[in-house]
Amino acid sequence: MRARVPGSTSNLGPGFDVLAIAVSRHVEVALEPAPALEIRSFGEGSDLPTDRTHLAARVVASVLGHDRVAITVRSDVPPSRGLGSSAALALAAAAAAGADDPLEVAVRFEGHAENAAASLLGGLVAATIVGGAPVARSLPLDPRLSYVLLVPDRRLATKDARAVLPERVPMADAVHNLGRLGLLVAGLGDRTKLLAAAGDDRLHQDARAALFPEAPRLLEALRIAGATVACWSGAGPSLLGICDSAAVAGDVRRAGERALAEAGVAGTAEVLAADTRGLVVER
Amino acid sequence: MRARVPGSTSNLGPGFDVLAIAVSRHVEVALEPAPALEIRSFGEGSDLPTDRTHLAARVVASVLGHDRVAITVRSDVPPSRGLGSSAALALAAAAAAGADDPLEVAVRFEGHAENAAASLLGGLVAATIVGGAPVARSLPLDPRLSYVLLVPDRRLATKDARAVLPERVPMADAVHNLGRLGLLVAGLGDRTKLLAAAGDDRLHQDARAALFPEAPRLLEALRIAGATVACWSGAGPSLLGICDSAAVAGDVRRAGERALAEAGVAGTAEVLAADTRGLVVER
Repeated sequence: MRARVPGSTSNLGPGFDVLAIAVSRHVEVALEPAPALEIRSFGEGSDLPTDRTHLAARVVASVLGHDRVAITVRSDVPPSRGLGSSAALALAAAAAAGADDPLEVAVRFEGHAENAAASLLGGLVAATIVGGAPVARSLPLDPRLSYVLLVPDRRLATKDARAVLPERVPMADAVHNLGRLGLLVAGLGDRTKLLAAAGDDRLHQDARAALFPEAPRLLEALRIAGATVACWSGAGPSLLGICDSAAVAGDVRRAGERALAEAGVAGTAEVLAADTRGLVVER
Repeated sequence: MRARVPGSTSNLGPGFDVLAIAVSRHVEVALEPAPALEIRSFGEGSDLPTDRTHLAARVVASVLGHDRVAITVRSDVPPSRGLGSSAALALAAAAAAGADDPLEVAVRFEGHAENAAASLLGGLVAATIVGGAPVARSLPLDPRLSYVLLVPDRRLATKDARAVLPERVPMADAVHNLGRLGLLVAGLGDRTKLLAAAGDDRLHQDARAALFPEAPRLLEALRIAGATVACWSGAGPSLLGICDSAAVAGDVRRAGERALAEAGVAGTAEVLAADTRGLVVER
């Protein structure tokens, strides 16, 4: 069995822990029977130990009930950058192992229901936990939108990005994000309705800038170059520009590269499309 | 000039201060030139003083720059029940007076951008304040959904309903409402995706139950009778059941009437449709 899923960019500004868009970077997990556990890993994440502590091995063993399997992982989703690599890997591993509900398995191992849901369903999703189980819904996504990701050459562990968040927030900030989320969902469904303000967040980005002080300046550069919305990708450090068209995204990518260089941040800027297929399984 | 707008039910559980649906109750404001201000008011709200303090008179005078006008108001939207009557009246008055941006005028006088936006656009809207001005976006609304409103025969002033809310809230509750809002928007666009949990709120309803202690029991009755989602309508005291079909709504309405009687709350239960036209102006 072979399962291929897209990585994803989550939060999208106001949609903290809720919204995600699947993007055109992928993780593939293939399984074959074997006398004992073997793991081969290619591409992104291949520097991690390929033993039973590997996330794919843990997920597969949990679903199969044994680990007599050869696992091959191929990924072009860089880890710890805010592109949902762990959620994608867990989902692909669960699906390749034949899990009935790969979303539940992936979230049990890795959390991040919104990333795992985007990897499963493709496109734009809203996902959250209801009664202990992940629930996901697809939302309309305008196919003409194009995405620029600034991917700094540094890692930011999600747990560190979470530790900087306050436990209580002003009601006004909670309501602010609800309002922006409403505008954002409308605008992502129809790019002609997408406003810059729809990407405004007051719950997580400012606090996280302590871990990545160049972020506000880089986001501003994406906006100035033409991104309609600019926000953190997941828990960072990747940053996302949502653009009205592929042509605008080309300009924004170049401006993003310049901004990275000017800020002294090593990294890449690239144009990605939304992945609309989500999980693909081959038997 | 004559302007007719629907009333609206807002918040819808998690969408506090953001979401609203226009419903099939209306306010109409007609203007004719006159030597001096005259106001006639019929139907709901006709017990309010018909002088220059009347909301319609204040809005019309502001837009026209004078008050030499005869204003006729007809309404079947009861005031102070959580059905956006003030926002609807302000919007209708602004539109009848020929305001370029009746939404801005209505929100300047009465706040409640989400109610005013639903009255303007019809259907389901997300609205909020961006840079001091109201911004509204339409969202898809499944036309098969049907709505039951329990309208208690008591008034609850929005300012009292606001005074009971905390100034700070747990981050987890803010994120909870964001997640439910995502699920709710998906489910309102496609009733087959609508979950009961999509109506869960942690920001305002529990605090407001202090002002209307029977509310939780009545909401539960709506759910048990078949409403997919049950929530407060605006700042209350009206309560809303969102139903999968008109047939289900009929059952829910009858159950709602019984529940009101059992709780000793005078009031009515009625089935309403969404209004999809919003503002209609006749010259």
